[in-house]
Amino acid sequence: MKDLYPSRINGYPKIINRKDPIIYNSTANDGPLNQSELDFYEDNGYLFMPNLFSTDEVQILQQELRRNMNDNKESQEPHVIKESQGNEIRSVFDVHNNDEFFHDLSSHERIVSIAQQLLGSQVYINQSRINFKPGFKGKDFYWHSDFETWHMEDGMPNMRAVSCSIVLTDNYHYNGPLLLIPGSHKYFVQCVGDTPDNHYLESLKMQNFGVPDHDSINWLLEKGGKIDSAVGPAGSVLFFESNTLHGSNSNISPLPRSNVFFVFNSIENKLVEPFAGTTPRPEFAANRSNIKPIIPKN
Amino acid sequence: MKDLYPSRINGYPKIINRKDPIIYNSTANDGPLNQSELDFYEDNGYLFMPNLFSTDEVQILQQELRRNMNDNKESQEPHVIKESQGNEIRSVFDVHNNDEFFHDLSSHERIVSIAQQLLGSQVYINQSRINFKPGFKGKDFYWHSDFETWHMEDGMPNMRAVSCSIVLTDNYHYNGPLLLIPGSHKYFVQCVGDTPDNHYLESLKMQNFGVPDHDSINWLLEKGGKIDSAVGPAGSVLFFESNTLHGSNSNISPLPRSNVFFVFNSIENKLVEPFAGTTPRPEFAANRSNIKPIIPKN
Repeated sequence: MKDLYPSRINGYPKIINRKDPIIYNSTANDGPLNQSELDFYEDNGYLFMPNLFSTDEVQILQQELRRNMNDNKESQEPHVIKESQGNEIRSVFDVHNNDEFFHDLSSHERIVSIAQQLLGSQVYINQSRINFKPGFKGKDFYWHSDFETWHMEDGMPNMRAVSCSIVLTDNYHYNGPLLLIPGSHKYFVQCVGDTPDNHYLESLKMQNFGVPDHDSINWLLEKGGKIDSAVGPAGSVLFFESNTLHGSNSNISPLPRSNVFFVFNSIENKLVEPFAGTTPRPEFAANRSNIKPIIPKN
Repeated sequence: MKDLYPSRINGYPKIINRKDPIIYNSTANDGPLNQSELDFYEDNGYLFMPNLFSTDEVQILQQELRRNMNDNKESQEPHVIKESQGNEIRSVFDVHNNDEFFHDLSSHERIVSIAQQLLGSQVYINQSRINFKPGFKGKDFYWHSDFETWHMEDGMPNMRAVSCSIVLTDNYHYNGPLLLIPGSHKYFVQCVGDTPDNHYLESLKMQNFGVPDHDSINWLLEKGGKIDSAVGPAGSVLFFESNTLHGSNSNISPLPRSNVFFVFNSIENKLVEPFAGTTPRPEFAANRSNIKPIIPKN
C-alpha cells in the first residue's frame, strides 16, 4: 500500500498537504450535525458540543470512571498507565473491550451517529481510554498529531478517523484544557527521526518521536490565526479530526480533569502494517483483530 | 521584633488571619487609583491595569529587555538565573541597581505613585527582575505567597509591599499567564518544614520550601470562589499584594512571555533579620543596604 504520509524519514521536517477528504461525502441529512457544525469541523478540524450529556448522565459516567480506576488500582497490566512519577493511574486503555459499561457507552447512538456522519461510513473503535489528570500536578502534553503516530506506529492508512472526548469535569482555561490549532488538520507535518521498536512503552507517558518541530508549529499557528481551548462544562463532548494538532498545558489548579476518550475509525480505514516498519503496537493501543462495525444503541 | 507570621515551624500546616492592613490609610485623593480600583485591590489582592504603557513604550521596553539579556548572555553571576535545563536566561535580578534604563523605569511616576498610594508611604525597591519565559517549553510555577518567603528568608516584618509586573508580551489564557486566588491575601498559610541555609540558590528555579499544602489551597480557593488569570495585551500592568497566592501553568504555546517585575516595599517596612533564622539572602534577591525612598520621575 502506498504511503500517503511518509514521516520520520529525513533529518529535516517538511509540511505536505492533506491528501484525504475531511468530511466524507456527508451532508446535514446524514446525521445529527447541521450544516454549520459540519462546516466548522471541516474548516477547523474539531467541534466542541457543550452539554451533549446531561448532569445526571455525567454523574453516572464519573462514578463509573472512578469505579473502573479503582478496579485497576493494583493492576500491573500494560493497558493501565501510571504517572511518570508516582504510582497513580493516569489512563486505562481498551475500556470498550474490557469494561461492560464503557463498551455500551462506546456504541451510544448519540456519539456514534456523529462519527458515522463525519467519516461517511460505518465505524469501529480503534482505541479507547479513560483519563484522569490530577489537580495540583497535572503534567503538560506537547503538541502532536495523533494521526502521525497512528499512521507510523499502527498502520492507519488514511486520515479517516475522529477522536471523541467526553469531558467529565468542568474544563476551565486554567486547569489544562485541550488546546487546538484551527486548520492544522489540513497539513501533515513530517517529523524528524527514526522510530525505535516498542516506542509505545514510553510514548504513552511522554512523546519523544513523532514530535513536530517549532517552525512547523509556528507556520500552522500563523495559518490558523489562534490557539483554541476546549473549555466548557462537564458533559460536553469534543470531536477532533485525527490529524488536528493539539496538546495541553500543565494543571497547577486544584481541579482535576477526567474524560472518556474514544477513537472512531472508518470501517474502510482498517489498520495495515505500521508505516514505520516497526512491530505493531499492542491491541489495547490500536485494535486490529476482530474488527466489526458498531451497531449504534440508544 | 515579634514574628507576626510564623511559618515552617510545625509538622502540619495552619491558616491564620492577616494582621496588617491591605491598603494603608489611603483614599482616592492620595494617588492615581480611584475608589473602585482601591476597593478591587482591597477585596481581591490584585489589580490588573490594561495598557498602562503604550504600544510605543512597550516596544522600547522589549528592546531594552532583550538588550539586557543579551548583555548578560555569558554572565556567570548569581543574579543571572538560567533555566533548570539548558543554558537560557530565565531572569536577570537587580536590574534597578545594575541597569540604567531599568533603574529609571523603577522610579517612573506612573507606577511609583500607585505603589505609594497602596502602601500609604514612600517606597523603595526590595527586589527587581526581568523575566523571559520561552515559548514551547515554559515551565509551570507552583502556588506560593511571596510574602512567606520574604518574611522567612529576607526578614520582611509586615505585609506592606506590592509587586508590580509590567507585561511585555500579550498574555493569553494558553501561554502561562499568572493565576491568582482572589482574597487569598487576607490569610497567611503557615507552611510545613524547615529552611535550609542558602535555599535561595534552588528556590529561584524551583520552590521546595514555603510551599502551601493542598488543603490550604483548596480552602482559599473555596473562599475566593475562583481562579483569576492575568490576561491582557502587552503594556498592561499587574499590581499584586505581597501575600496573594499565585502561580502559573506551563506554556507549550509558541508565544513567549516576558515582563519586568518590581517589588515596592514601604520605607516603613525595611528588612530585619530573616525570621527563619537563616543567613540573609544576597542583595540581588532582597535589598537591605543603602535603602532610600524613591523620588518619582516622569
